Amino acid sequence: MFESAELGHKIEKSVYEQEVPLLREALLDVQLELARSAAFPVVILIGGLDGAGRGATVNLLNQWMDPRHIQTHGMGEPSDEELDRPMMWRFWRALPPRGKIGVFLGSWYTWPILNRVNGRTKDADLEQSMERAKRLEKMLVDEGGLLIKFWFHLSKAQQEKRLKTLEKNPLTRWKVTERDWKHFKAYDTFRAVHETVIRHTSTAEAPWLIVEGEDQYYRNLTVGKVILTAIQNRLAPESQPMPKTLAPPLLPPIDNLHLLKTLDMTRSVGKDVYKTKLEKYQGKLNLLIRDPKFKYMSVIAVFEGNDAAGKGGCIRRITGALDARMYQVIPIAAPSEEERAQPYLWRFWRHLPRKGRVAIFDRSWYGRVLVERVEGFCAEIDWMRAYGEINEFEAQMDRHHLLVVKFWLAITKEEQLRRFEERQQTGFKRFKITEEDWRNREKWELYEQAVCDMVDRTSTQQATWTLVEANDKNFARIKVLKTLCNRIDSKLKQLHEQGVDYLDKPRKRD
Amino acid sequence: MFESAELGHKIEKSVYEQEVPLLREALLDVQLELARSAAFPVVILIGGLDGAGRGATVNLLNQWMDPRHIQTHGMGEPSDEELDRPMMWRFWRALPPRGKIGVFLGSWYTWPILNRVNGRTKDADLEQSMERAKRLEKMLVDEGGLLIKFWFHLSKAQQEKRLKTLEKNPLTRWKVTERDWKHFKAYDTFRAVHETVIRHTSTAEAPWLIVEGEDQYYRNLTVGKVILTAIQNRLAPESQPMPKTLAPPLLPPIDNLHLLKTLDMTRSVGKDVYKTKLEKYQGKLNLLIRDPKFKYMSVIAVFEGNDAAGKGGCIRRITGALDARMYQVIPIAAPSEEERAQPYLWRFWRHLPRKGRVAIFDRSWYGRVLVERVEGFCAEIDWMRAYGEINEFEAQMDRHHLLVVKFWLAITKEEQLRRFEERQQTGFKRFKITEEDWRNREKWELYEQAVCDMVDRTSTQQATWTLVEANDKNFARIKVLKTLCNRIDSKLKQLHEQGVDYLDKPRKRD
Repeated sequence: MFESAELGHKIEKSVYEQEVPLLREALLDVQLELARSAAFPVVILIGGLDGAGRGATVNLLNQWMDPRHIQTHGMGEPSDEELDRPMMWRFWRALPPRGKIGVFLGSWYTWPILNRVNGRTKDADLEQSMERAKRLEKMLVDEGGLLIKFWFHLSKAQQEKRLKTLEKNPLTRWKVTERDWKHFKAYDTFRAVHETVIRHTSTAEAPWLIVEGEDQYYRNLTVGKVILTAIQNRLAPESQPMPKTLAPPLLPPIDNLHLLKTLDMTRSVGKDVYKTKLEKYQGKLNLLIRDPKFKYMSVIAVFEGNDAAGKGGCIRRITGALDARMYQVIPIAAPSEEERAQPYLWRFWRHLPRKGRVAIFDRSWYGRVLVERVEGFCAEIDWMRAYGEINEFEAQMDRHHLLVVKFWLAITKEEQLRRFEERQQTGFKRFKITEEDWRNREKWELYEQAVCDMVDRTSTQQATWTLVEANDKNFARIKVLKTLCNRIDSKLKQLHEQGVDYLDKPRKRD
Repeated sequence: MFESAELGHKIEKSVYEQEVPLLREALLDVQLELARSAAFPVVILIGGLDGAGRGATVNLLNQWMDPRHIQTHGMGEPSDEELDRPMMWRFWRALPPRGKIGVFLGSWYTWPILNRVNGRTKDADLEQSMERAKRLEKMLVDEGGLLIKFWFHLSKAQQEKRLKTLEKNPLTRWKVTERDWKHFKAYDTFRAVHETVIRHTSTAEAPWLIVEGEDQYYRNLTVGKVILTAIQNRLAPESQPMPKTLAPPLLPPIDNLHLLKTLDMTRSVGKDVYKTKLEKYQGKLNLLIRDPKFKYMSVIAVFEGNDAAGKGGCIRRITGALDARMYQVIPIAAPSEEERAQPYLWRFWRHLPRKGRVAIFDRSWYGRVLVERVEGFCAEIDWMRAYGEINEFEAQMDRHHLLVVKFWLAITKEEQLRRFEERQQTGFKRFKITEEDWRNREKWELYEQAVCDMVDRTSTQQATWTLVEANDKNFARIKVLKTLCNRIDSKLKQLHEQGVDYLDKPRKRD
């Protein structure tokens, strides 16, 4: 694995000084073109051994390139806001937008490796972490990003020599910490874990590039040239994205039977029963949220449904039971300019609630496989991969005790028409009907198909879809509240029984 | 002060039920118009006594209005990321964009009041806090925002009765905490402090509206109607913004002498001296940043200057001395869509560094009084008020031990021409010359005037401008590094001598 990076690669200073001006010029050129075109983001991971020159190289990159379009993130100790969200949140919030370069010193590999070396986790945990890393990277690449992963390597003898040299110089002594020597003593363990990680996560779309760290000239020139070539190739006009191979078509609706047709749309709840049950479940919800263990979890309630299915009414029955400080309603409309410059899921990651809070999404990331699919706003290959990305997203939340409760509010086409017409007459509901709503109605069957596929592909054990028969608003509201209560109740029971520890939490470095 | 709010205001239930549907309809209508026009943001503060129905009213507002365009912020315990920044940062990050309504339960008054009641601060501190609050509010209003401040009041007897009623009902018992009773015991002290605060911060542009909290029908109807009328009035076509009275003109340049002409532009540093001094000050800077007290402060270095004055080169000499994890270069270009929907300073607040970090701004908030003034991108009245807003911004940073070091890099018109021509010939600097640069050159004298005004009006004791003679790049770089070192050195000495406590820090509630 590291053979080629222990050969003693070396570049003469004179050669280096000759090549650098040309390299700088070319780097600045591609960087400017990248920024101008805003064609794709560049994510550069710098991993590797202490003393192998990661920091120095990154500083140099900052010097060579235009600092306006490059940002370096030292992913050290997480903040409490970061610890309150799934582990990947801190990386999502630091992702560069299209046209920019983001350099990560420390990455989604850092903590899993440290935890494994320190024996806090087992091989199976490490493997799961790597799977999550690979899925994140695949998503970045699928979204058009350029991902370059460098691994700075030193042999054991080289690392010892390097640390000693740094320590001898009064100007660089500070760079060597106790932790570095502690890590050096564990060189062999680290090496074994590093090998595993590099082997498992060198994928076709984002292979690791192992760079010998000993000679600064070799190291700097290598890194600079790799970055240059990678961006150049991607910017080249002939570099079209790979022809997007289409997946086999989904099952055709041959017998006209589907999931939504199994719903009994006549279900209803009388006015008196409604009043009693509403009070009961609002009270219960309120109590659950004040459970002492609730501060170790959080909740996302996702509302999707036909237009006019009554999402807003259900949401207000939930918020009516909660203290206004505890929740946030996130309405999902068209993405903003900053959001459009990021991978699709970015704008949902940014709204994940802290522990002890509730976030209610009025429409959600499922827009990808509903409206974007039906209206053709994204390519089939993109919404097809979204099912997997969404499952991964929700699995990460689940691991972090962030409970995801998803509701599809279904009404019949006739009931929708009735409500549209009613709304156009009633003053204070008028605002809810747009021409788009009428247009969407014309694609009713396509939406039905999309909903069924969505439920089939994203109703997982940890994030089940609840289909709500919503022709009767009272019935729908009670079903939503009851389901939410039951899900939170189960989660709290689990926390009470199993404790609140979780494995992929970053821990203090040691 | 509270006389009218202790009269026992009451609305009959039947009247209430008659009025609410009309109020809801009207509220939804203005809310939609506000969202569509994205004309201005609405900031609603809900302050007042425990048990006076703040939470209930906010919940009701959320039910009445369209949750897609309203966001409630319970400003409770600050996170560590918030504690690391000036106190106002958490409010800036929560401000609603144009077209949206932001409701704040708890505000910039909460902690100053609590700290004063608990005797942690003195009257003078409270007064300073109120001044800061007023300046923030004035800025919000000047930026076009609609600010509505409600104060929910209860007499002592009413509060006691209210808390007891809540406690008696098993469904609302949780709402009453030990803290509430502790606060009730200090009713008279709170009342006195509240009076002071309300008196001092009821301004023409944002008066406090004191609402009796006892009767929910009265309370809800009052709040709803005030919000409705306020937004309606501001949306009305005849409601033009007040004619912006122009300030008296700045001093005319009669004698052709100004600040920049006092600079000795021939100053230079020889190559050998440069090399020695560069190493010296980079080493010193590096040491300073590793001072144990540095983790209690942070640094913002601001770079402004003529085009081609060498800002980038100076920045790279600073970053070259630092670990890449410690700093962030913030290039300031045109604001994004999300930034344009916020007050001018919002996009700079969002980049304030955490404690122990360095942020380097390549151009800054001074664009307002430089390019925006000269190019006429904003009205005179707007850039005139920017001087005060900027001083307030930097004073808040200073209070939080965030050191602001500002550099103006000056070159002569001839030297600029030389550099422009040189850059067009040298490959890897080519990217830096745009047509805009040539256009700016034509307005050289206007920019000079703007720079002199800027320095006169914003060079404060805590955030001094350093004018840098930059015709000789070596001289400029050394002066910048030396100045930065000296400023950090002084700040560290101050921290070592006076300790690191500061007064307006939010503290745990008690």
